[in-house]
Amino acid sequence: MSKVVVEVSPSVDGYIAGPGVAVGRPFGEAGTRLHRWMGEDGLPPTEADRDALDQMYATTRSVVIGRRMFDVGIDPWGEDGAFGLPVFVVTNRAGEDLVRGATTFTFVTDGAAHAVELAVVTAGDGDVMVAGGADVIQQCLAAGVVGEIRLHVVPVLLGAGTRLFARPLPDSIELEQTDHVATPLATHLTFRIAPSDHVVPATSRP
Amino acid sequence: MSKVVVEVSPSVDGYIAGPGVAVGRPFGEAGTRLHRWMGEDGLPPTEADRDALDQMYATTRSVVIGRRMFDVGIDPWGEDGAFGLPVFVVTNRAGEDLVRGATTFTFVTDGAAHAVELAVVTAGDGDVMVAGGADVIQQCLAAGVVGEIRLHVVPVLLGAGTRLFARPLPDSIELEQTDHVATPLATHLTFRIAPSDHVVPATSRP
Repeated sequence: MSKVVVEVSPSVDGYIAGPGVAVGRPFGEAGTRLHRWMGEDGLPPTEADRDALDQMYATTRSVVIGRRMFDVGIDPWGEDGAFGLPVFVVTNRAGEDLVRGATTFTFVTDGAAHAVELAVVTAGDGDVMVAGGADVIQQCLAAGVVGEIRLHVVPVLLGAGTRLFARPLPDSIELEQTDHVATPLATHLTFRIAPSDHVVPATSRP
Repeated sequence: MSKVVVEVSPSVDGYIAGPGVAVGRPFGEAGTRLHRWMGEDGLPPTEADRDALDQMYATTRSVVIGRRMFDVGIDPWGEDGAFGLPVFVVTNRAGEDLVRGATTFTFVTDGAAHAVELAVVTAGDGDVMVAGGADVIQQCLAAGVVGEIRLHVVPVLLGAGTRLFARPLPDSIELEQTDHVATPLATHLTFRIAPSDHVVPATSRP
């Protein structure tokens, strides 16, 4: 069955972007620092980092992102749309699907949980990646649709920016750490959300 | 030479206490959940957790804490004051030293950095532990007096409470991860602050 997986690269102090996020500058002043482990910052990633990146996409068949992430990212993602997968964009503004190479962006106007439902159906036996931003991740956690959280914790205190966990959750959520790999560029931590806390939307059940 | 080490147990979403912190309830609604890895929650810690706890106190010769942590903790710490070490309390209210068994609480009214200076002198060749709360930890980081951060990340999303990193830092701070151990109860992560970023107060130099 599909897993819904949050994948995100926060700093040690919990920021997923620096101050000054803008169109074409998706991480603001943090630049590509938080994605150095993916090789986006000029330094070569280690083999373990590459493995974490491969694992990220190995079973992913669809992606959920927020409108803000789409707006600031669409230019840097280039002509192929970077993901090479169906991407569901949580937004208030309806729009036609946007096709960029192998990437299709579909705009979903009735909330993050519904975007996840559509993504689960599209993923078939594959997994759904909730890739950000922070608002969409928190909406998915609050809706109980997330099964796994993969944090790629980057060894820097950014000190300011966009917080991953900016808003309170309705309840605390127990996690189980199922994997951890540390490299000089990132600490890759995988947490499973206990099944009892994990509500799968009815329409996504086979 | 003395190291100044921040030791703290945040949840995955970066809270070091739940909502409702009060005198005698130092972690609020989170209860002892964040200290389960220390054996304070009725469950036995693993050997690796015990090792992390032993390491925490092995070289520590003095402690710095904030007034709020003192106020909410002093009752639960009991007649021996729990630390068994000289403890410097950052406060606006001057006061006589308070002796509880092998623990001496000294009240320092001119800021966290000065409390660290006094603690460094007292520690001799040993290390200084900055044990919280969040405000004092952030003041010490902003003042550039911290050499190492040991996070014992607890696998729970608390969803609300007291944030470890509530306030912006004046600058971002690069870290180097030097150790990591994961148990079902906590992920113990050690980060060194690059020496170039680490300003030792002049009076603490031998």
